[in-house]
Amino acid sequence: MTHQKFLNQCLELANESVKNGDHPFGSVIVLDGKVVASSANEVVTLGDVTAHAELRVVQKAQQVFESEELARSVLYTSTEPCPMCAGAIYWAEIDHVVFGCSQEQLYSIVRGGLELKAHDVFKTGARQIKVEDFSSDYRFIKQHKDFWTK
Amino acid sequence: MTHQKFLNQCLELANESVKNGDHPFGSVIVLDGKVVASSANEVVTLGDVTAHAELRVVQKAQQVFESEELARSVLYTSTEPCPMCAGAIYWAEIDHVVFGCSQEQLYSIVRGGLELKAHDVFKTGARQIKVEDFSSDYRFIKQHKDFWTK
Repeated sequence: MTHQKFLNQCLELANESVKNGDHPFGSVIVLDGKVVASSANEVVTLGDVTAHAELRVVQKAQQVFESEELARSVLYTSTEPCPMCAGAIYWAEIDHVVFGCSQEQLYSIVRGGLELKAHDVFKTGARQIKVEDFSSDYRFIKQHKDFWTK
Repeated sequence: MTHQKFLNQCLELANESVKNGDHPFGSVIVLDGKVVASSANEVVTLGDVTAHAELRVVQKAQQVFESEELARSVLYTSTEPCPMCAGAIYWAEIDHVVFGCSQEQLYSIVRGGLELKAHDVFKTGARQIKVEDFSSDYRFIKQHKDFWTK
């Protein structure tokens, strides 16, 4: 139930991305039940291919968090993180990730990315990261279908 | 010979990182034989765990390059890119990477990172990326030995 609330916020951020001319991805970081940082995808807006929602939300969270707090937080994201973002999450020492649309679902709609699951990046690290998959919730893949196939 | 010249510049940038209180990593992007962007590791200086040399150099290069130019450029780096940076290189559509110290060499000295080779990230993508390994040049691993074991 709590997960759903924060995943819904990611969906809303992803919708905002589209309104801004960006791609539909959104992410929030939650500490002690409160959102402390959020970001939509800003690749087009910032003219920066690295401005994925998860990388940006990690960068923003660092400005308000001590690293010990970041380590206790949960990162929610509308779509499973790509390897770049999984790496950023690892370096930030966040150890809990919850995502909506899975990579398999995303790449069934739009190709061209790195088809390497977040878990497969994380498992090469020295620290365990818990990953929860909410891809059975149809709204997350629908958001991509509506955007990429319109 | 040309590769050596740009790898030397990465070594110098990595040395500068250390002088600034950062970790020894440096990277340059070269187009038509000229360095068009460079970055040292800036993790400590910027208080940003994502400020690895390669991610930063990609971000900087985007400010001066058209994406078509970025696609024709070569990224040189003193140490093999981590998965986060390999992802950034992929999204920037750079298709040629030359590195000094390998991940195996780095992780024989200091642990705790994501032990996933750049090639193993790139091979999951839709585009081929050429990776050249200059880890037989002892200077690159020596730089890490001097830093992490002192």
